[in-house]
Amino acid sequence: MSDVIQIYDSTLRDGAQAEGISFSVEDKIMIAQQLDDLGVHYIEGGWPNPTNPKDLEFFKRALDLEFKNAKISAFGSTRRANNPPEDDATLTTLLKAGTKVTCIFGKTWTLHVTDALRITLDENLQIIEDSCAWLKENGREVVYDAEHFFDGYKADPAYATNTLLAAQEGGAEILVLCDTNGGTLPTEVRDIITAIQPKLQTPLGIHTHNDAGMAVANSIIAVELGAIQVQGTFNGYGERCGNANLCSVIPNIELKLEKKAIGAENLTKLMKVSRFLSEVANVYHDHRQAYVGESAFAHKGGVHIDAMMKQPATYEHCDATTVGNERRYLLSEQSGGATMAAKLDHIIPGLDKRHPTAQKLLQKIKELEHEGHVFEAAEASFELLARRTLGTIREPFKLINYRTFNHRSTRSSAVEAIVKIEIDGTIYHTAGDGDGPVNALDAALRQGLEQVYPSLKGVHLEDYKVRVLSSAAGTAAKVRVLIETSDTKHTWSTVGVSENIIEASWIALVDSFTYKLMIDGLITTENKTV
Amino acid sequence: MSDVIQIYDSTLRDGAQAEGISFSVEDKIMIAQQLDDLGVHYIEGGWPNPTNPKDLEFFKRALDLEFKNAKISAFGSTRRANNPPEDDATLTTLLKAGTKVTCIFGKTWTLHVTDALRITLDENLQIIEDSCAWLKENGREVVYDAEHFFDGYKADPAYATNTLLAAQEGGAEILVLCDTNGGTLPTEVRDIITAIQPKLQTPLGIHTHNDAGMAVANSIIAVELGAIQVQGTFNGYGERCGNANLCSVIPNIELKLEKKAIGAENLTKLMKVSRFLSEVANVYHDHRQAYVGESAFAHKGGVHIDAMMKQPATYEHCDATTVGNERRYLLSEQSGGATMAAKLDHIIPGLDKRHPTAQKLLQKIKELEHEGHVFEAAEASFELLARRTLGTIREPFKLINYRTFNHRSTRSSAVEAIVKIEIDGTIYHTAGDGDGPVNALDAALRQGLEQVYPSLKGVHLEDYKVRVLSSAAGTAAKVRVLIETSDTKHTWSTVGVSENIIEASWIALVDSFTYKLMIDGLITTENKTV
Repeated sequence: MSDVIQIYDSTLRDGAQAEGISFSVEDKIMIAQQLDDLGVHYIEGGWPNPTNPKDLEFFKRALDLEFKNAKISAFGSTRRANNPPEDDATLTTLLKAGTKVTCIFGKTWTLHVTDALRITLDENLQIIEDSCAWLKENGREVVYDAEHFFDGYKADPAYATNTLLAAQEGGAEILVLCDTNGGTLPTEVRDIITAIQPKLQTPLGIHTHNDAGMAVANSIIAVELGAIQVQGTFNGYGERCGNANLCSVIPNIELKLEKKAIGAENLTKLMKVSRFLSEVANVYHDHRQAYVGESAFAHKGGVHIDAMMKQPATYEHCDATTVGNERRYLLSEQSGGATMAAKLDHIIPGLDKRHPTAQKLLQKIKELEHEGHVFEAAEASFELLARRTLGTIREPFKLINYRTFNHRSTRSSAVEAIVKIEIDGTIYHTAGDGDGPVNALDAALRQGLEQVYPSLKGVHLEDYKVRVLSSAAGTAAKVRVLIETSDTKHTWSTVGVSENIIEASWIALVDSFTYKLMIDGLITTENKTV
Repeated sequence: MSDVIQIYDSTLRDGAQAEGISFSVEDKIMIAQQLDDLGVHYIEGGWPNPTNPKDLEFFKRALDLEFKNAKISAFGSTRRANNPPEDDATLTTLLKAGTKVTCIFGKTWTLHVTDALRITLDENLQIIEDSCAWLKENGREVVYDAEHFFDGYKADPAYATNTLLAAQEGGAEILVLCDTNGGTLPTEVRDIITAIQPKLQTPLGIHTHNDAGMAVANSIIAVELGAIQVQGTFNGYGERCGNANLCSVIPNIELKLEKKAIGAENLTKLMKVSRFLSEVANVYHDHRQAYVGESAFAHKGGVHIDAMMKQPATYEHCDATTVGNERRYLLSEQSGGATMAAKLDHIIPGLDKRHPTAQKLLQKIKELEHEGHVFEAAEASFELLARRTLGTIREPFKLINYRTFNHRSTRSSAVEAIVKIEIDGTIYHTAGDGDGPVNALDAALRQGLEQVYPSLKGVHLEDYKVRVLSSAAGTAAKVRVLIETSDTKHTWSTVGVSENIIEASWIALVDSFTYKLMIDGLITTENKTV
């Protein structure tokens, strides 16, 4: 892949360092699969070491999975001073992770070598060289991250260059220049890369942080100068101000530099993956994010919209659909249904979008998305919505009412729910208690449903997430609940939106049971022609 | 101010084009005063024209105010074809705004001239020149914005340059190069500016959009090449992906390029103004924002924190206090005891960590983190926990009990809460309703508390997040609720963990009110020696 710019994703490692972000092992597996599907070349899974049981488990589980595009990489450091590589805990644990690729960082900055590591400058060069060499000897592809490269170069250009030469001598496949503190300006990046390039035979990569708002610019300049790998994270997650945002880097490479990274076809999935990451990380999806933000192609000014209608190039630097986004006119609410039609096609292949029922469904989806539903992360709810509109399922029960009670005093607490539903003319009036109101509702609803649909006994809730949609109104804001459910064979996600967290949870809960009954073939009806 | 880089703020004009942002006239006045106080040189108040009554009123009111640093600028376009300047509605309304400065944009791109304006290329040059000249004759300082400059230059370099020469001929004080579509890369900006500079006598300015994530980089490169004015917005607000974020541009000019913009003293107010803008715009303050984000100097990784303690330059590109931000050590599963001790030191300077009370507190924190608290995202709860353990605050009230009721049927729904608390021997038994149970509890609790602590009326909830801690147990799993609260001056975060989402929310809610009363000095007690 000589002409391809390699995308090295560190969302699971550097991204997990972001304030407020914490991925479970299950999250990490799901993310890795999405990134692989997107065509990312490397996925850095974490730092395997005994104090990081989560990362160890991720590597263990990832070994059993098949990735069609990505190589999994394990991250660590060069060996400690005085440790021979074979006795060094970091290097041996890296090998134990069992990945094809390892990425190790070493010290570039003389200050760090003499003051932090407290070793001689020559010893540090030796450490870099033999750490790389030992991993190579053990069959690993070696990515060398030159920590603090630009700051180190500014302090001592010759020594910084020598650390790269040591890694090259050790057999590293790529030398990645890191702007660890994120404070380097584009002009400095240009000058420094231009100066070191003639001295090296090994290809360069770039790893930047965004502390001066330059991470994307610095990455692109490095690629222009010949770097063949960009390390970054999705949505720019990372410690402090985050890493280079791959959601900006990738389209800039593909659309502006006209070089291949993940390819044009995969590029159309970019926005979906960006939103998926926000959902899993349970953080706000930045609406103003370049390329993949919901506002990135949203036009508000009247003058702009008039001009846009005549000639899109007037106020758009590229076609929104290339990254899976879409143009929106905020005043006229003219957003196109192409994305939704594509989703629908997935459920009912060959559906004619001009048919009135299909049109009605597209309209309904638009309304719901406007209200805050995200069907990207709740495909089961999307499918149910489609089938309900097309009339190809019947509802498994009719709600008459539900109530929840919650009492708390210094001495006691109690949570109860009462649910009254009707199935085929029979009333089921059941009660349940639980640790919280949703748990109590779950218990009460099951009691009724399981009498008619015993297969629901095998269903359990895997995950439950809540997002506030409009934070301005505080506890009165609209909330979105996402529920992940599974039986022995499948896992599915449903969504509910309401100002009341209990009602939003109820909607998602009902969808999750309904979906189970649908895949079991218990509530499907004849496919009507549409 | 020959050596000063001029900051031209367009938050009130381009910023107001952002999706979800709408400023009242009152908002605009408040913002202008804050920007003036910060030392911004130009404040673009809006586009005064009859269809924009808000902007007209802003200019009317701004005329009566005194600004100590900033000049108010009115924005508009060059005259229409065939209109003599003195009969042109746009130009005459611009003059009526009564500002010292006017900024007008003209067409650079041949495509726009021939296809949109439908005039000859020469006519366009004449329009640019005499629009500038007429405003000059009428005593205005004229800023000329060359719309689509970089795209226009790429299409026809000679013509694009001629439009600038026309504005120069008309007497414009500054020629501002606009990347209107935001798709230009830094290297193109560098090459184009370098090419045109020898042909012009008038100083250059830069106005960029962020559609490729390059707005800040492009602005800084222009300044490096000699541009003396940067146009941008606070927090990068603006249509689509927004404008160049002045909160990144200004510190990059001051701290990286070491040129004067607003000066070192004003720079320390930057974070405060950034947060103020988020408050007024009523949008989420981006935590990862360069320089002024809450996470910009927040360290999470254990390795990083250890290194930081020894030598801050290790993972910080500049001193947080220069922009009014502060260094934070996040408490997380990745951080050790040193981090907690450092945080504690911030609350009680000089505290001896070996003291039994300090030890007890550290032990308590560890237990709570094990249960699922994350103090990294809830510093207010951390501080309250510390002060409770050290005995330096008293609780503002005693809970007797609370209850919530939630009812839903096909026809109706209702949510109510009843709260019974005791303050100084008096019982407050109050009720509230709301969109959801937490909102209802908030309403009921406030009713009681505000009778004794009226300052709580100024407190509102900004954000509310829920995470399921052990997803395996589904709706019975433990949940963590994070609440972000603010008054006019501060923003703080609190946490609650419980199996019951309502109880977890209650804990976070009580902490959020308690913290407010603590910073107001209403419940602090003598500092005990520890």
